[in-house]
Amino acid sequence: MSVLFQIFQNTRAQTVSLCEPLEIEDYIPQPVDFASPPKWHLSHTTWFFEELILKKFLAGYRVFNPHFGFLFNSYYHTLGDRAIRTERGTITRPTVKEVYEYRKYVDAHIGKLLQTNSSSELEELLILGINHEQQHQELLITDLKHTFSYNPVFPVYKEKFNLTAQENSDTGWIKIPEGIYEIGYKGDGFHFDNEKGRHKVFLHEFQISKAFVTNAEFLEFMEAGGYENFRFWLDEGWSWINENQVKSPLYWKQIEGKWFSYTLEGLKPIEPNHILTHISFYEAQAFATWKGLRLPTEFEWEAAEDQLDWGKRWEWTYSAYLPYPGFRIAEGAAGEYNGKFMVSQMVLRGASTATPKGNERKTYRNFFHPKHRWQVTGIRLAR
Amino acid sequence: MSVLFQIFQNTRAQTVSLCEPLEIEDYIPQPVDFASPPKWHLSHTTWFFEELILKKFLAGYRVFNPHFGFLFNSYYHTLGDRAIRTERGTITRPTVKEVYEYRKYVDAHIGKLLQTNSSSELEELLILGINHEQQHQELLITDLKHTFSYNPVFPVYKEKFNLTAQENSDTGWIKIPEGIYEIGYKGDGFHFDNEKGRHKVFLHEFQISKAFVTNAEFLEFMEAGGYENFRFWLDEGWSWINENQVKSPLYWKQIEGKWFSYTLEGLKPIEPNHILTHISFYEAQAFATWKGLRLPTEFEWEAAEDQLDWGKRWEWTYSAYLPYPGFRIAEGAAGEYNGKFMVSQMVLRGASTATPKGNERKTYRNFFHPKHRWQVTGIRLAR
Amino acid sequence: MSVLFQIFQNTRAQTVSLCEPLEIEDYIPQPVDFASPPKWHLSHTTWFFEELILKKFLAGYRVFNPHFGFLFNSYYHTLGDRAIRTERGTITRPTVKEVYEYRKYVDAHIGKLLQTNSSSELEELLILGINHEQQHQELLITDLKHTFSYNPVFPVYKEKFNLTAQENSDTGWIKIPEGIYEIGYKGDGFHFDNEKGRHKVFLHEFQISKAFVTNAEFLEFMEAGGYENFRFWLDEGWSWINENQVKSPLYWKQIEGKWFSYTLEGLKPIEPNHILTHISFYEAQAFATWKGLRLPTEFEWEAAEDQLDWGKRWEWTYSAYLPYPGFRIAEGAAGEYNGKFMVSQMVLRGASTATPKGNERKTYRNFFHPKHRWQVTGIRLAR
Amino acid sequence: MSVLFQIFQNTRAQTVSLCEPLEIEDYIPQPVDFASPPKWHLSHTTWFFEELILKKFLAGYRVFNPHFGFLFNSYYHTLGDRAIRTERGTITRPTVKEVYEYRKYVDAHIGKLLQTNSSSELEELLILGINHEQQHQELLITDLKHTFSYNPVFPVYKEKFNLTAQENSDTGWIKIPEGIYEIGYKGDGFHFDNEKGRHKVFLHEFQISKAFVTNAEFLEFMEAGGYENFRFWLDEGWSWINENQVKSPLYWKQIEGKWFSYTLEGLKPIEPNHILTHISFYEAQAFATWKGLRLPTEFEWEAAEDQLDWGKRWEWTYSAYLPYPGFRIAEGAAGEYNGKFMVSQMVLRGASTATPKGNERKTYRNFFHPKHRWQVTGIRLAR
Repeated sequence: MSVLFQIFQNTRAQTVSLCEPLEIEDYIPQPVDFASPPKWHLSHTTWFFEELILKKFLAGYRVFNPHFGFLFNSYYHTLGDRAIRTERGTITRPTVKEVYEYRKYVDAHIGKLLQTNSSSELEELLILGINHEQQHQELLITDLKHTFSYNPVFPVYKEKFNLTAQENSDTGWIKIPEGIYEIGYKGDGFHFDNEKGRHKVFLHEFQISKAFVTNAEFLEFMEAGGYENFRFWLDEGWSWINENQVKSPLYWKQIEGKWFSYTLEGLKPIEPNHILTHISFYEAQAFATWKGLRLPTEFEWEAAEDQLDWGKRWEWTYSAYLPYPGFRIAEGAAGEYNGKFMVSQMVLRGASTATPKGNERKTYRNFFHPKHRWQVTGIRLAR
Repeated sequence: MSVLFQIFQNTRAQTVSLCEPLEIEDYIPQPVDFASPPKWHLSHTTWFFEELILKKFLAGYRVFNPHFGFLFNSYYHTLGDRAIRTERGTITRPTVKEVYEYRKYVDAHIGKLLQTNSSSELEELLILGINHEQQHQELLITDLKHTFSYNPVFPVYKEKFNLTAQENSDTGWIKIPEGIYEIGYKGDGFHFDNEKGRHKVFLHEFQISKAFVTNAEFLEFMEAGGYENFRFWLDEGWSWINENQVKSPLYWKQIEGKWFSYTLEGLKPIEPNHILTHISFYEAQAFATWKGLRLPTEFEWEAAEDQLDWGKRWEWTYSAYLPYPGFRIAEGAAGEYNGKFMVSQMVLRGASTATPKGNERKTYRNFFHPKHRWQVTGIRLAR
Repeated sequence: MSVLFQIFQNTRAQTVSLCEPLEIEDYIPQPVDFASPPKWHLSHTTWFFEELILKKFLAGYRVFNPHFGFLFNSYYHTLGDRAIRTERGTITRPTVKEVYEYRKYVDAHIGKLLQTNSSSELEELLILGINHEQQHQELLITDLKHTFSYNPVFPVYKEKFNLTAQENSDTGWIKIPEGIYEIGYKGDGFHFDNEKGRHKVFLHEFQISKAFVTNAEFLEFMEAGGYENFRFWLDEGWSWINENQVKSPLYWKQIEGKWFSYTLEGLKPIEPNHILTHISFYEAQAFATWKGLRLPTEFEWEAAEDQLDWGKRWEWTYSAYLPYPGFRIAEGAAGEYNGKFMVSQMVLRGASTATPKGNERKTYRNFFHPKHRWQVTGIRLAR
Repeated sequence: MSVLFQIFQNTRAQTVSLCEPLEIEDYIPQPVDFASPPKWHLSHTTWFFEELILKKFLAGYRVFNPHFGFLFNSYYHTLGDRAIRTERGTITRPTVKEVYEYRKYVDAHIGKLLQTNSSSELEELLILGINHEQQHQELLITDLKHTFSYNPVFPVYKEKFNLTAQENSDTGWIKIPEGIYEIGYKGDGFHFDNEKGRHKVFLHEFQISKAFVTNAEFLEFMEAGGYENFRFWLDEGWSWINENQVKSPLYWKQIEGKWFSYTLEGLKPIEPNHILTHISFYEAQAFATWKGLRLPTEFEWEAAEDQLDWGKRWEWTYSAYLPYPGFRIAEGAAGEYNGKFMVSQMVLRGASTATPKGNERKTYRNFFHPKHRWQVTGIRLAR
């Protein structure tokens, strides 16, 4: 267990490290209901260890503060009442300082627990908690970028911290032959319930691009009137761009004819050869249609994955987020993890520059509503 | 072509026949944006023949009224401006009488055209128009039921006209073995673009029910607190029932402890052995979860179809409405037909009691948003 | 009572006469919640006589149809359930024919009742019912105009029927000296509870215009950028024009640089010397501010009334609709008539071209929310 | 000027003093669009002095930060762009520390300016700025209470700080005779444009209560079904309580049958003899109707004011917020101060426990939309 405790500590330290450049003020706001404040991420991940591990395995454990369960639960209906999701930005107390004390308290007790208990059930939950915290590390940083983007002074999170300034390493197409492919997680390592259920899928021959779509290519689409021509758009996407007056990727701003983008290093000019990001599924799909190409399915992606350089962008697929054959919702709170979101969302595959190192997995199924853009999303084309 | 003209005339007459029990007043209202008034269905199907056939193939054709293109276009952005979808219920002129004259005028000109032209392109468009009109026959009757349901006096459309009073003919399970199955339309007959692209799908072994879920079974779910327990529901479904205070299938009303349902024959008691209908995907999915079972995928359904007694309900599948491999949007107005709806909707397979005879097809892919209930939907379980 | 019965019959006939140019279809739609369909006006006014008079005074009276109370009640909470206000446009049954039979049935029974009963209580309620019906005549025609205005074919209600083609008969200013003025209804004639309570108001000296604002003057405001400059607008008005993209009076359309207006005679060019109409309080107030003038209060209007040529437009005043001193809500259903609307509305004084002859009264207090424009409103300035 | 500078300094210190119990986190949230975060109040009042005084009168003045004009302007359209009102809670930078530096910087420059300039124009603007800051002191504390109230842990702002624990000093009725009364500001002291224009109003005889309505009286109304009976309510108020599920004054919570209220000292039991507060105009009016009494007009209040013990609650009047005779909007930014809100709001008279000492004025016209409850409002009845 000592290796696992080391990983636990590293993960916990990494979350704190991400907050190092923050002012106290930055921990608070929640401008939109799909994102959460840093303070909430810090607390919620801690509460997860307290609720699912310490309360269960550590005899005589006293919770740090009985209110915290209520405040920092997310969507786990099973585990009692919880504060309303859209009001996280109103909760100023406990203070940030108290939240850090909460983290230390829970970390210490986990350490204490691991000295005496090494059951495989505990180990599994600890690994789940670590992976859960890593997921929140990614959200913490993308939510923060979103909040900062409202500020007309374009706050700098950190110099030399750029999620979006990557280029392609290769171009051209990979051809994948027709056949039956095995899909889903295989092995003994950690994985989520939604990727379980290794199963066979028949794929027809297809080709998939080695490169991501770049800013230059997307600017071409924009300049060709891509956002003004309904032909390229799904009906729902066409409504979405018109109702929200979407005319460019998220965070882009045109100043005196030139395109800039808000980044965590501040406002920066758009670099043509950088890989495009912060686009919705609707935009990804419209772009593909305009090109006369298409998005891959998640099965195609997984079949081709070992020949791709992935990990820079979450890649929108043209697969809806649905259960694999044999998927079954687990009992208890863990059962609320993924299965209940399996409608109206699209799968993204790969990983992004915001994904914690080591948290990538070729069978990982990320998912968002097709309109969402605040993650580090991108486009890889197929045909 | 004379056989085809006969089918054309029968289809056109069938639409008029469906309206025979209506008063003029009934042709007008549009209480919700997803349904349309009878007058609009009568006009729009006619406009389809005028716009896509007569204007193109009949030399010297003069449109019946130049305003009608504007008024009765639906969502075809390609073909000029159109009245706003949500305002169809405000359009009192042209009158119903004029709309019937419009139908006769167009029918006569189609007849005239077919005397001299028998190109395969014309034939294909005519068949498309006939199928399009049959789709609208089903919508006309389900939309009408929806409008009537708002009226506290429970209007009777027609005695002995009951879309929902059917029973199962068989029970038990069919086992389908693992293997590769061919999916999609095969043959030379009419079919829509979304079912084209015959392709291979690998299916693991599964079982599918011979019977539909009945009212009695669903009442059991309701009495077991099915609508009050979040565990059975997709997160989006749980929000939907709570925001809309859904506590029973659509059109159900509890009067002094007893359940009734609005039907086109007026208010009727719920019969336990009748097949359940007017439920959303969310409700279908929650019911299946409560039963410890699941909904079939559209591929499983198609693989099992020849052993099923289908055609009484549109059966919700746990498949999102997505393109088949090789799907490509057609050029021109026909290209707007189906492809642009391929996001955020679920597939329904089979057909319903409202489906015009002869319009069923084993590869037909119907689709609606998961919340919609006004079609004659039902549940067939799998495991 | 025979004179009163004559008035009753004339009023009832006048409502029917207003509907003479209608097609059955026109009786149905309700595109917005603040307006009602003609069928509803016809039924509701009839229900008023049945509910408040026949059921109370005519021994053995049998209601025409027990559902109608539910369907055609308006906002009288006291009198049982009622259909939802925003769903009036969905009620196709009873048919228009049945509604006319309902009118005849109630009229006949009122005649019968008056042969034997001539109490003053009955007389008062009958006069209330007549005035109530006259109010609905005005709404019927303005609601109809509103519904027709949605139709891109600009339906003609009737040739030579123009609510808006009036000119001023005089110009200049009237000076009213400082002093105490008596405000409110005086006499024995019919009046509503909101104008009761004759009371004294002190007015400082002011001047009021003999003329209404014309289209030419308002076009000047528009051309001077009136709709684009926040300085002229109340904060709430500025939000309203921006959220609703208001750039001209209601029903105005600019076609190739020229202004037209939808009228009950169809689309007509704007005549500069016609009196402006279909403007909100916000627009009236912004225009007055732009002119360096102001709107009169309702007390100033009433003090000056005998020197004004009024009756062509409902004149927005800068008075909120509030109770007169001593106002007390009556017992029973009549008590719901006016008092409960006394917040967030502005008073309009005078009468309009849509007001039935004989229904004008110098103490009449009309009232609408400041955003409403579908009545025949206008502007008279003060200083 | 040295006295004035002393007042300036005291006022500025008082604002800072109100924030003394706050944690940095508390300065940030804006849960509703009608309230603002403490940081914004601190900055906006400072910006007011910088923008209207220092930039104009102090030669060579360099603004502290050119972004601040944009960030901390409120609704002054005249003075350039401004951040969106509903997004104040997203602005984490500048930090609270920087905002306090901004305050010191501006204070120092005001001091410097006053050493050399003593024009009456400057003096007037300085007094306006001081009064403006005092208004924001009241909003700061009521907005803060509102934000804290979202937190399920009921944060304590400060022990022994209770805005709402007051009792009546007297009971009974005062009779005011019929006559002409002078209304509006008289004298040379500071006052707002909306109270200017001393004018005559004729009042009929009336009586006004010496006491405010207490919690006990309001509980009686609640227990008598006051919130369930439409008869007591304005139509708009009835909709408001039903749509928002209002069943008690703001901040009240029923726990095991007993009523509590969130206060700035934490959750406290409702004391029957305390003066009621945090009610909307709708609730005030419904309560008065239930009692068979009414609310006074603002003119009645002003005529009776010298016989009343006022200053504990903002008293809802049944007067709409409208211009006094002769009201004229001032030129420039000051002209945007009050006049543009003169529609759809009701006047409140008196002052509250949150009003800074010395900021009360018998002619002061406070105003809010009838639904608002977060100010320290109360009810005084008339008849």
